[in-house]
Amino acid sequence: MKGMVYLMVKAGIIGSTGYAGQELVRILLQHPEVEIVWYGSRSYIDKKYSEVFGNMFQIADNACMGEDIKELAECADVIFTATPQGFCSAHLCESFLGQAKVIDLSADFRIKDVKKYEEWYGIKHQSPKLIEEAVYGLCEVNREDIKGARLIANPGCFPTCTVLSIYPLAKEGLIDMDTIIVDAKSGVSGAGRGAKTANLYCEVNESIKPYGVCTHRHTPEIEDQLSYASGKDVVINFTPHLVPMNRGILATSYAKLKKELSYQEVKEVYDKYYKDEYFVRVLGENVFPETRWVEGSNFTDINFKIDKRTGRIIIMGAIDNVVKGAAGQAVQNMNIMFGFEENTGLKTVPLFP
Amino acid sequence: MKGMVYLMVKAGIIGSTGYAGQELVRILLQHPEVEIVWYGSRSYIDKKYSEVFGNMFQIADNACMGEDIKELAECADVIFTATPQGFCSAHLCESFLGQAKVIDLSADFRIKDVKKYEEWYGIKHQSPKLIEEAVYGLCEVNREDIKGARLIANPGCFPTCTVLSIYPLAKEGLIDMDTIIVDAKSGVSGAGRGAKTANLYCEVNESIKPYGVCTHRHTPEIEDQLSYASGKDVVINFTPHLVPMNRGILATSYAKLKKELSYQEVKEVYDKYYKDEYFVRVLGENVFPETRWVEGSNFTDINFKIDKRTGRIIIMGAIDNVVKGAAGQAVQNMNIMFGFEENTGLKTVPLFP
Amino acid sequence: MKGMVYLMVKAGIIGSTGYAGQELVRILLQHPEVEIVWYGSRSYIDKKYSEVFGNMFQIADNACMGEDIKELAECADVIFTATPQGFCSAHLCESFLGQAKVIDLSADFRIKDVKKYEEWYGIKHQSPKLIEEAVYGLCEVNREDIKGARLIANPGCFPTCTVLSIYPLAKEGLIDMDTIIVDAKSGVSGAGRGAKTANLYCEVNESIKPYGVCTHRHTPEIEDQLSYASGKDVVINFTPHLVPMNRGILATSYAKLKKELSYQEVKEVYDKYYKDEYFVRVLGENVFPETRWVEGSNFTDINFKIDKRTGRIIIMGAIDNVVKGAAGQAVQNMNIMFGFEENTGLKTVPLFP
Amino acid sequence: MKGMVYLMVKAGIIGSTGYAGQELVRILLQHPEVEIVWYGSRSYIDKKYSEVFGNMFQIADNACMGEDIKELAECADVIFTATPQGFCSAHLCESFLGQAKVIDLSADFRIKDVKKYEEWYGIKHQSPKLIEEAVYGLCEVNREDIKGARLIANPGCFPTCTVLSIYPLAKEGLIDMDTIIVDAKSGVSGAGRGAKTANLYCEVNESIKPYGVCTHRHTPEIEDQLSYASGKDVVINFTPHLVPMNRGILATSYAKLKKELSYQEVKEVYDKYYKDEYFVRVLGENVFPETRWVEGSNFTDINFKIDKRTGRIIIMGAIDNVVKGAAGQAVQNMNIMFGFEENTGLKTVPLFP
Repeated sequence: MKGMVYLMVKAGIIGSTGYAGQELVRILLQHPEVEIVWYGSRSYIDKKYSEVFGNMFQIADNACMGEDIKELAECADVIFTATPQGFCSAHLCESFLGQAKVIDLSADFRIKDVKKYEEWYGIKHQSPKLIEEAVYGLCEVNREDIKGARLIANPGCFPTCTVLSIYPLAKEGLIDMDTIIVDAKSGVSGAGRGAKTANLYCEVNESIKPYGVCTHRHTPEIEDQLSYASGKDVVINFTPHLVPMNRGILATSYAKLKKELSYQEVKEVYDKYYKDEYFVRVLGENVFPETRWVEGSNFTDINFKIDKRTGRIIIMGAIDNVVKGAAGQAVQNMNIMFGFEENTGLKTVPLFP
Repeated sequence: MKGMVYLMVKAGIIGSTGYAGQELVRILLQHPEVEIVWYGSRSYIDKKYSEVFGNMFQIADNACMGEDIKELAECADVIFTATPQGFCSAHLCESFLGQAKVIDLSADFRIKDVKKYEEWYGIKHQSPKLIEEAVYGLCEVNREDIKGARLIANPGCFPTCTVLSIYPLAKEGLIDMDTIIVDAKSGVSGAGRGAKTANLYCEVNESIKPYGVCTHRHTPEIEDQLSYASGKDVVINFTPHLVPMNRGILATSYAKLKKELSYQEVKEVYDKYYKDEYFVRVLGENVFPETRWVEGSNFTDINFKIDKRTGRIIIMGAIDNVVKGAAGQAVQNMNIMFGFEENTGLKTVPLFP
Repeated sequence: MKGMVYLMVKAGIIGSTGYAGQELVRILLQHPEVEIVWYGSRSYIDKKYSEVFGNMFQIADNACMGEDIKELAECADVIFTATPQGFCSAHLCESFLGQAKVIDLSADFRIKDVKKYEEWYGIKHQSPKLIEEAVYGLCEVNREDIKGARLIANPGCFPTCTVLSIYPLAKEGLIDMDTIIVDAKSGVSGAGRGAKTANLYCEVNESIKPYGVCTHRHTPEIEDQLSYASGKDVVINFTPHLVPMNRGILATSYAKLKKELSYQEVKEVYDKYYKDEYFVRVLGENVFPETRWVEGSNFTDINFKIDKRTGRIIIMGAIDNVVKGAAGQAVQNMNIMFGFEENTGLKTVPLFP
Repeated sequence: MKGMVYLMVKAGIIGSTGYAGQELVRILLQHPEVEIVWYGSRSYIDKKYSEVFGNMFQIADNACMGEDIKELAECADVIFTATPQGFCSAHLCESFLGQAKVIDLSADFRIKDVKKYEEWYGIKHQSPKLIEEAVYGLCEVNREDIKGARLIANPGCFPTCTVLSIYPLAKEGLIDMDTIIVDAKSGVSGAGRGAKTANLYCEVNESIKPYGVCTHRHTPEIEDQLSYASGKDVVINFTPHLVPMNRGILATSYAKLKKELSYQEVKEVYDKYYKDEYFVRVLGENVFPETRWVEGSNFTDINFKIDKRTGRIIIMGAIDNVVKGAAGQAVQNMNIMFGFEENTGLKTVPLFP
């Protein structure tokens, strides 16, 4: 693709009328190398996209199309599937991967152990043979593998935030992997755009609640990635909470340090991994991540605090769940796969207030 | 006081123009046995109380008075001090306690070890002799001592929520006290009514952040109470977070179970302590506390979940920080001290939505 | 009923699992003269009421029942119908009114001209004969008629706020009734608890929008009441807006003064009508209504400002839409009908913050 | 400047640490033709800009500088003053205008009649001689004059939204200018970043209130512009309201049509003025503006509804107050002045949710 800049990458989106799908549209519309050729939707076929999302008026007035991956594979260079669990694995064929690259924002190809996937998701996996080929698209960790991939399993929002913030400590063996507790907080867009009573304004506003306690499906995804990083089987506690705000994830993680370490020593470890990463910002000492500082951007803000009293390290990470936790990272993956600068179309300064 | 129902208890409030002070006014105005005789304020002396808080128009149009505890002690049966740390210990004299009962909503008398208080709060304690006499007013735990007390140290909001939710497990020795991690979330009223940039609407809205990581002053208060309960010195990690909502605290706590326990076994332990407690509601299995369900009320909603995979128990508690976490518990203490039914004036059904 | 205080009034609620229905439950549970005997619901039959609304845990654990008015009429003294338009008129029979008093929170009996009702609501009225008997339950205006009524048409939320704030001016003939413009703002609970995409948290939060412009169904209701007050046919512009908050209505109304009037002259007119009304608070000069100051209460806060430059008067009113705009006023009506003090069970001080 | 694309425009910002100033920084950092050379601030001199606004970490780590316009004029091509009323007129000299173009976001040069300015603002104007030269920077209306201007009075947020939405009707003489009523709603960022109790989270959240009723300073600005458009002296009622959201203004305006007009006839008038305007979007029939659909963008969404019953037209406009209502329009003005494409750096698709 490089060297052929006169040719725009043709992108199709299945599930473009959910929150992640809309964010993909928003980002791709502002991406200098991409043209959207397919606004897929189950519920709004033939309706103008801008009638579903008023922000798109006079910007994306295209009609919504269906969700036929086969047809889409013939006209697109890259397909994004922002669909419910089970859709992509049910409709994707190996042959399509010869026609277009696929970036799946669902969980279908994130877990290598198909049994584990089926247990946690309660779904029979329809294309287990493709799991092996899929690359887990956590860009800062798997960049080299992503370059040549045909199928990307775009990471979940909680795993992105959690794994990126813990990764250097796990990789360097600085923490006791049996002591990890992740207490995460998410904005409401993470719950999707489905019309459910539980997500009505008056049900969510002015309240915070835990959910999926000990059973949330992102648990095995986080455990897998931390296991790869540390080289041992990791089991964690993961508790997400719903926060009355549109966007944002904050993950507060706790672990025992294997030995006493100074701030400076740990800071150097983080710098080793992230100093040159555009999208990871390790904050200054005693400055803690806040979701407002990454809103609308692809950044992951990270910091940590060592508690000498307990021998634990507290690690905090913040992302915009819709961007780095979904659409933004999907585009980052696309950039890597197509040889663009990794931050092309993703340099947005976070919106505040 | 009992048997003299024709005489209302005369209550004075120092610091009545903060959020906790206003809630005290709101509750006491609706209390059948109490008459407010003193609306103390540093900033609004001589101003009508209802000009400071418009909800009080035609309900409490009294003029605000100063903060002279001595003068107040002469005309009140009970004094509530909803003041910054250091005020009560600086202005309270032993002799006042002979005139009026004092319920201090600040932290001044919560920590028995004066050095610990001075370290965490960075303040020289002005009346260390009174610390011993003060009773820690966590009603469900210290009810008997409260009955005869002259000086109540009304518990902090986070400690109330955290200690009540963990207490039965600590008391019964079911958890490893060295493994306790408390991840708490608070509404913004907890930050007080001072005009600070950090608490402006646009700074708090649409964001979540941790604060006071490893250094929050409620840490030693929680540790003290869990130490008393368990009979050993407890050190914990405590991380509060600021949530964009007016009221509410949710505390999510994690600990290792000493041995494998079933849901039913743990439920029975909670029932043992709380079955007859009006203000503590242990929810049904797999129903988790949400702050909206206690808003405006003095309830503490509690539940737990056992994770067999990790051997940990996750304990969740929710309170309204301004009520059970401050003014409501203060009135509950007053009710106990004056021999009223403990829930007098506090039976409000939580406001939803 | 008076003189028989040992007998509680038995109340049944059809539609108790909507927001207005839940507020009725909340208020009636705290009403000293009432016992709830029927928690009616279409969607949650046999489910515990406290499983639908967690705030009711250990307070109202009763099972939800169906919506059979006939059966209910046999066991209740008063029936509240908090149901969609058309339900009450379809199911109510004249004979039930001999058994129990009915307070209908829907619009079915608010408009005396059945054709007008059918035009604006697009529904065929099923019991037009009962319209004549129904009393429009705007308590401060129709108190005498309410006393003897068997069927109350409980006013809409916008009409309550708008009519109460304009009423003295209309009644005294001080404004040109052809110039009235009402620009109203409502919290989201007014949209009900139905699972609609438009009312999801992320769709409503961080935005304001007008809706039902020139077509909102409360328009003829406001016009009728202002016509009765002024003795002439009134046609107005009414534009509601959706505001990202749970509760509250603010109505800002504009009209030409017929002649120049001073603040004091207009203030005296308002005092004439509202000086002795417990639930109407005419604020001090240049203090304008804010919905937060009435939250959770049955108050209507009102004020006005005369603009000499344009010869117009701006009238502002604020209520809690779920209380004075629905459940609270319904209970106020009940109190009047059953001879209780009008503010029994309704003296709650507004909740702030 | 055109033809010299290798030279970036050097921009300095006085007042860069307020909300409008920060938005200027955010936009200019993403503007391909501009380099920021001066981050002016009164309160944060020498502090890193990214310590004031965490979103700017690793993006704008520059130190804040003072507010010396003279010094700044020597190093900048364009100066933005996002300062309190009175600052710019007090510090600006005619000679500076020979060195750098000035775009003043305050009200100092918006009102041509200095007496009117001094009355409404209560400030003595310090440089009345410069008022005549200043061009009112409402781009869609005054584009030609802006091109050659040295000093731009950047319009207020309410006037931008109101005037743009009413302009075609005023210009074409379709409405009775004596009947205009503007009821506006604003997000909280419009109140600035000053630490005031009234703007604390808990004071604003969950409430709506009117303010500045009949006295808001944007009134004469709107009246002036509507007077220029219609050719007659216009006096209006203008009532702003504070809405619990960060960004956004919605203006709902009412006026009598001079004669009966169809939707299509009025639509054609709007199209005549705005069909080719990139930043003005006249929505489809019965689709009304919502602030969420313009958030983070420079768009003005407009629509109208004709009420045959009353002979009035209701005109609605929505903008992001921080962008089109402040920083975005300032950059649009700069683009026009420097000969760039008018939407350079301003093509952001609105952020949703």
